[in-house]
Amino acid sequence: MATSEKFAGKDISEVFPHLRGFLEIECSSVQKLKELDKVDLAFSCLPHGTSMHFVKRLLDTGARVIDLSADFRFSDIGVYEYWFKSTHKYKNCLKEAVYGLPEIYKERIMGARLIANPGCYATSVILGLAPLAAEGLLKGDSVIADIKSGLSGGGRAPNLGHHFPEANESVNIDSVSGHNQSPEMEQELSRLADTRIKVTFIPHSVPLNRGILATIYCRLKKKVSLDKAYGVYEKFYRRKRFIRLLEKGNYPSTKNVRYSNMCDIGASFQDDVFVSVVALDNLGKGASGQAIQNMNIMFDFPETEGLLSTAIYP
Amino acid sequence: MATSEKFAGKDISEVFPHLRGFLEIECSSVQKLKELDKVDLAFSCLPHGTSMHFVKRLLDTGARVIDLSADFRFSDIGVYEYWFKSTHKYKNCLKEAVYGLPEIYKERIMGARLIANPGCYATSVILGLAPLAAEGLLKGDSVIADIKSGLSGGGRAPNLGHHFPEANESVNIDSVSGHNQSPEMEQELSRLADTRIKVTFIPHSVPLNRGILATIYCRLKKKVSLDKAYGVYEKFYRRKRFIRLLEKGNYPSTKNVRYSNMCDIGASFQDDVFVSVVALDNLGKGASGQAIQNMNIMFDFPETEGLLSTAIYP
Amino acid sequence: MATSEKFAGKDISEVFPHLRGFLEIECSSVQKLKELDKVDLAFSCLPHGTSMHFVKRLLDTGARVIDLSADFRFSDIGVYEYWFKSTHKYKNCLKEAVYGLPEIYKERIMGARLIANPGCYATSVILGLAPLAAEGLLKGDSVIADIKSGLSGGGRAPNLGHHFPEANESVNIDSVSGHNQSPEMEQELSRLADTRIKVTFIPHSVPLNRGILATIYCRLKKKVSLDKAYGVYEKFYRRKRFIRLLEKGNYPSTKNVRYSNMCDIGASFQDDVFVSVVALDNLGKGASGQAIQNMNIMFDFPETEGLLSTAIYP
Amino acid sequence: MATSEKFAGKDISEVFPHLRGFLEIECSSVQKLKELDKVDLAFSCLPHGTSMHFVKRLLDTGARVIDLSADFRFSDIGVYEYWFKSTHKYKNCLKEAVYGLPEIYKERIMGARLIANPGCYATSVILGLAPLAAEGLLKGDSVIADIKSGLSGGGRAPNLGHHFPEANESVNIDSVSGHNQSPEMEQELSRLADTRIKVTFIPHSVPLNRGILATIYCRLKKKVSLDKAYGVYEKFYRRKRFIRLLEKGNYPSTKNVRYSNMCDIGASFQDDVFVSVVALDNLGKGASGQAIQNMNIMFDFPETEGLLSTAIYP
Repeated sequence: MATSEKFAGKDISEVFPHLRGFLEIECSSVQKLKELDKVDLAFSCLPHGTSMHFVKRLLDTGARVIDLSADFRFSDIGVYEYWFKSTHKYKNCLKEAVYGLPEIYKERIMGARLIANPGCYATSVILGLAPLAAEGLLKGDSVIADIKSGLSGGGRAPNLGHHFPEANESVNIDSVSGHNQSPEMEQELSRLADTRIKVTFIPHSVPLNRGILATIYCRLKKKVSLDKAYGVYEKFYRRKRFIRLLEKGNYPSTKNVRYSNMCDIGASFQDDVFVSVVALDNLGKGASGQAIQNMNIMFDFPETEGLLSTAIYP
Repeated sequence: MATSEKFAGKDISEVFPHLRGFLEIECSSVQKLKELDKVDLAFSCLPHGTSMHFVKRLLDTGARVIDLSADFRFSDIGVYEYWFKSTHKYKNCLKEAVYGLPEIYKERIMGARLIANPGCYATSVILGLAPLAAEGLLKGDSVIADIKSGLSGGGRAPNLGHHFPEANESVNIDSVSGHNQSPEMEQELSRLADTRIKVTFIPHSVPLNRGILATIYCRLKKKVSLDKAYGVYEKFYRRKRFIRLLEKGNYPSTKNVRYSNMCDIGASFQDDVFVSVVALDNLGKGASGQAIQNMNIMFDFPETEGLLSTAIYP
Repeated sequence: MATSEKFAGKDISEVFPHLRGFLEIECSSVQKLKELDKVDLAFSCLPHGTSMHFVKRLLDTGARVIDLSADFRFSDIGVYEYWFKSTHKYKNCLKEAVYGLPEIYKERIMGARLIANPGCYATSVILGLAPLAAEGLLKGDSVIADIKSGLSGGGRAPNLGHHFPEANESVNIDSVSGHNQSPEMEQELSRLADTRIKVTFIPHSVPLNRGILATIYCRLKKKVSLDKAYGVYEKFYRRKRFIRLLEKGNYPSTKNVRYSNMCDIGASFQDDVFVSVVALDNLGKGASGQAIQNMNIMFDFPETEGLLSTAIYP
Repeated sequence: MATSEKFAGKDISEVFPHLRGFLEIECSSVQKLKELDKVDLAFSCLPHGTSMHFVKRLLDTGARVIDLSADFRFSDIGVYEYWFKSTHKYKNCLKEAVYGLPEIYKERIMGARLIANPGCYATSVILGLAPLAAEGLLKGDSVIADIKSGLSGGGRAPNLGHHFPEANESVNIDSVSGHNQSPEMEQELSRLADTRIKVTFIPHSVPLNRGILATIYCRLKKKVSLDKAYGVYEKFYRRKRFIRLLEKGNYPSTKNVRYSNMCDIGASFQDDVFVSVVALDNLGKGASGQAIQNMNIMFDFPETEGLLSTAIYP
């Protein structure tokens, strides 16, 4: 079942013509949700601030929910209210929500009723530094995350910045002074490190449809060799099917992960600065792919069900 | 007069068909240079390591030279030899060479016989931090320069990485462990600051033809307000025609400078980190445009002669 | 002076940031036009159906006008009203309007008060076939014009079809059953041929910012050699500065004309079918460039004033 | 098993890094083929003129072969030798080869030892006109096929025309005077029509990775309504899973088929001219997808095995 206010009453293949002949679902208004009394799982893709109300109603009907908004990502309600400029009304839900990054929280996701699916930028930065944070190697005030993102991350609603002749052949920066996915990164890395990790983060838009390349600069608490550092990553990501740790000297490219749920990681030192490079598909591992992965875990399906496709080349 | 080994004997409009009807110059082999005895000015666009030999011969004939290779950019010959893995045979030429960044060295360029035209990446990073360095505000070990560059910077020789189906729809990183334009940045910023400035630098390729966006992260030696910092930039770039310091809250985009000799700069703090954002055209202010600007100064033409065109939109 | 309803009161460099430091004009509402009593020349870029009213008012004040809408392009008012579904109120103006294709109507443009600046598609097809039509060689029912156009032709207002993730990596066709620039092509080619020429025309959108490539298929009334056909083109376009007839075996590419007022033409036979290929910049020779060319002629400036720039590569 | 001369000895994931972790096959030299004595099926992707020799050897070992070159596409050996400028040595193989367009030759493909997999351009034009040809409606000398193709069709070997800064932001035409996929189109359409069908065909390259949009203009032998024409298409493509006949008024876009084996078709009249518009993925239904479809049929697998994925959006 799919809901849409804008396209209520239309078949989904009228909205996305490439689905014609493959999927026939009529979009219905989310207002009809109140009639629902037996949904096993709902994916909520509503905007921040709006989503929480529907999530609450869904949970009340007994459904489990994977929420793709930021509404349930923060354990500290003040952080949410500061960054999203809304009042949060569902502290109890917040308390039971699990941050849906399966490489870290798989155990908790299994039993969860409510998953806060991570932001695409946050996924890349957390996965890029998690091993160092967990190992206690990450210097807390040193992290700079510079992200280059394709334009599908901005949604499908037309706007001047994403108008083809404007966006094509241009690299842009939205804002320098802070982005609302920083606090997610800081919350998760701080948890892993068990100490305050600060993240300076700037996203850039580049003219492609899909993909995030995160170049993450940091310093380590003590001098370690690159081999040692790779060892830390290998241990942390052992048997994590969607993480590919590249061989030393190779670095990720968005091309190798787009249209997949894979996350490629490569790293090196430039003198004292450790640079972790992460590539993922902002709509795959950065959004819907990860949501499916969470569903698989919640319902005890094989974690990779429906997700074992490679990037498509070229 | 234009030289080319590959296209010797061909008219330049056979090499670049868009010039047909505008320019008729036959390309001749650089070997014929020895016949030259009266060239006022030569632009050398030969590869690093090769250029120096021709530059020397040109200087010996009495010509003035603007060299677009890295061969004469370094005052410390050891730095050159370390990064470019060649032996440098012309120490005297090196001594008289002037680093061709007119916003800093205009006086010296006026009288110079040999100009080392800066690298495109280096131009963006030096211009992005020069005011802070000169003011003594830049913390020496804090600079991280993350650059996104269009693909024309890689030249016209076909290669797999720049093959359209590979490069299109992809963001790539060449190397993490160090790039040979870092030492230029460090040399110039250190001179301005009169103390050692270290630059961590990683270039990325993004799928567009023209443009560099440099996002430069650093820390300041003391706490200053953004207004104060902007004041430093305004003073430094007063009457510099090719620098546009954007209004606070606006950030550069490659779209607004491509095909021009302009360099747009915007900046802000993200908490303690100062972020300077620079956009320029890698073939304009980052290469040929700057070379023309240097020529204008050397020959006492108006500095903006031939260079006062805006970006072309869209 | 520039008018804009949307941006009235703003400086043009706020609307187009690349103009910052080059042009300072405040946009004013077109409503203030009635105050005007001494404008020498106005360019009207209003939509079809709206433009005619302002054009009339401007003419009444004594101004000369170059109208970029379709409102004054047709000598047969019925054709206009059929294709544009509006009533035309200014028959007298229509009568004095000159179709602004300088390669054909230069004499009449010199004295004109009102120029109907041609459509971009129409310019390419008319220029591609004019020599054959004028020579009486063109078979009247044989013309098929297949056009590939960059997306800037669709204007700057955001819409789903031109939203970057939709338009990028896609080739689209808007409509097959007929386009409102066909009648322009037919009117002009029929005039030149002095017999009815029918044009089957379909425009396609391709993911680039600038440029039109028109592939025009037709049959000739009698068998002529390619040399003979080229001779017809050479004669027709002798001393036409903005037309480049390529050497046999070479075909136009949008890359070689974009950002210029040039129109490249190449042709060949494929068995009995004659194929004329035309490239021009839809915003250059296809719109603003041609408008400037018309102005130059109207005011007895050199025809090439401000227009002698090449395409920009790459 | 995969062969490659260039990458012999390398794992395929070194050649295509996106396959890392999904596929481990070492590339071996095709020279080792002589050791083969038990291959059930080989896909030959060698160049025209080279492929035939290996195909012969493979057939001699008892293998069945799907050949993606043009070597076995023509029943008239003279046509092949004229267009491909090579001598054909294997007339007997030619005789048993089946043209691998399953929507037409499914019965014959089932029992075939040798399939000549169609060209991508030819697939689009044949599928776009087959119903009209088979129905005897197609006027034999009226067909003009104007194709716009993404750049992956040109292979992976770098060359100047496909160098990113050259190909990006440009629309190009390779040759006007004839292309070696015309004879395929003519052979197949003539067979279906049981009369000589001539095809004027010009391919264009547009800056995207994947996709072909074919705009095919023709005239019909007698006047039929659009409804009637659609009826002809519907009947011809009934139960053809990979053909989507769009609703009247909708036209194909490459976006809706890329990365899939689907072929979208829409059509309309523009006055007397019938226009059939076809979109497919040049590497899907235009090459590898179709090869898999042929394999499925040859080995009595479900025809859609491995091919039932939609286009990927966006």
